[in-house]
Amino acid sequence: MQRIEGFGLARVIDSDDTNYKPGDIVSGIIGWEEYSLLRSSDNLQLRNIQLDDDIPLSYHLGLLGMAGFTAYAGFNEICCPKKGDSVFVSAACGAVGQLVGQLAKLHGCYVVGSAGSKQKVEILKNELGYDEAFNYKEEADLDTALKRYFPEGIDIYFDNVGGSMLDAALLNMKVRGRIALCGMVSLQSLSTSSQGIKNLYSAIYKRLRLEGFLQSDYLHIFPQFLENVKRYYKEGKIVYVEDISEGLDLAPAALVGLFSGKNIGKQVVRVAKE
Amino acid sequence: MQRIEGFGLARVIDSDDTNYKPGDIVSGIIGWEEYSLLRSSDNLQLRNIQLDDDIPLSYHLGLLGMAGFTAYAGFNEICCPKKGDSVFVSAACGAVGQLVGQLAKLHGCYVVGSAGSKQKVEILKNELGYDEAFNYKEEADLDTALKRYFPEGIDIYFDNVGGSMLDAALLNMKVRGRIALCGMVSLQSLSTSSQGIKNLYSAIYKRLRLEGFLQSDYLHIFPQFLENVKRYYKEGKIVYVEDISEGLDLAPAALVGLFSGKNIGKQVVRVAKE
Repeated sequence: MQRIEGFGLARVIDSDDTNYKPGDIVSGIIGWEEYSLLRSSDNLQLRNIQLDDDIPLSYHLGLLGMAGFTAYAGFNEICCPKKGDSVFVSAACGAVGQLVGQLAKLHGCYVVGSAGSKQKVEILKNELGYDEAFNYKEEADLDTALKRYFPEGIDIYFDNVGGSMLDAALLNMKVRGRIALCGMVSLQSLSTSSQGIKNLYSAIYKRLRLEGFLQSDYLHIFPQFLENVKRYYKEGKIVYVEDISEGLDLAPAALVGLFSGKNIGKQVVRVAKE
Repeated sequence: MQRIEGFGLARVIDSDDTNYKPGDIVSGIIGWEEYSLLRSSDNLQLRNIQLDDDIPLSYHLGLLGMAGFTAYAGFNEICCPKKGDSVFVSAACGAVGQLVGQLAKLHGCYVVGSAGSKQKVEILKNELGYDEAFNYKEEADLDTALKRYFPEGIDIYFDNVGGSMLDAALLNMKVRGRIALCGMVSLQSLSTSSQGIKNLYSAIYKRLRLEGFLQSDYLHIFPQFLENVKRYYKEGKIVYVEDISEGLDLAPAALVGLFSGKNIGKQVVRVAKE
């Protein structure tokens, strides 16, 4: 039987690696199971968690974990944000998107997000500080929707979905716009029968840069990320929305739910209480 | 009647701009006509040509003109070439592509070009110094063709065509590869009924950068370009292939021929003898 893994938190029971002592909490790639055998040599992102009374432990999975760091590294290192830039984020209420938008606001940008339900749009505008948000499922034409929110065009598009949203964004980028390619979870992107991206030609005359990235290439700035984002959180400058499923039995449904957008915020599965 | 313009050379007959004197040769955006009225204020790239006995005048249209400068700026400023890089160039025998490949060879790269006829493939290998070249019209599958020439992948793709060649290149890029988006003349790129680019998702896990550019953004390095490329030519390190049509009457056919690849090398229309 195939062992399924994911980014998780675990308490060390026993260890022969002196960097990890019994009682420590670690994050890393961990099996979907109650007890895991982890090899630090194979688990390049295994790290000790510094517990902090002011921060929920689960935030080390999302806000302070791989998702949050993806947002931080992608926005700061790929998007070259400047004060006043117009920023568009897709899957804006997701584990990554919600931090991208809040970082963009802290940079003094105008920020619009798209999501797949009315409830998520409300969260984006009322809790996460997005200037505007829209439900892409209610839009007959994504190009028209983007022109409504960005009449002068988009400087930065943080793309979590690919497909027709990326195609519409290409039509609405400003000259020298930047597109961070972070994820392409849309069904169109994953299907071989999809129609593909048709507007890439606009990258030439608009001198656009599209760049794919993985957070694992930026681990040298992880300490800086942790320090800054913890501070923003403690100062009340950012918030984080989680969707917690209780028990390992719900893990498969929680995973499948990601593809239909059932989760609201970072999907967490709690296998055991602290 | 619409006036048609293109990048051309002309001799000044009369001028009230003191930068241009009767007898000077200028290059810039010029009408398809025997006599043109040019306004230097509207013609941002109008410039005086320094004649040189060792260099054919027509080379200031291609090798030392907008096409050559597109190759130079795109390759040096967008592609970040390093010695030993594997470089792929499409439309490699064209006005831009032929210089890209030769610059890449001067950088110590391995260079492969694609073109649309057996004759062009021979020119690429025997005259322009490409390591390998292939006729894309003879390939059943472009992905297979690229894997044959780049078993370890492509570092730099200088894209002059877009469409299915770009899609195949995306599948064959190395991690941190760079794609300069220079032109998309393929029929697939221009047709709204095309199938679009389906492999852009690979830009995420391979951390690719795709960047569109226009030579006009790099005019500050034009003097450096002119100095370097003139020197390479005089030292015999680069050559340039032109396809000259005689007389303005042939201009429409010469233009249309570009889209079927009828020209071999830079297409020039000679309106008048020097």
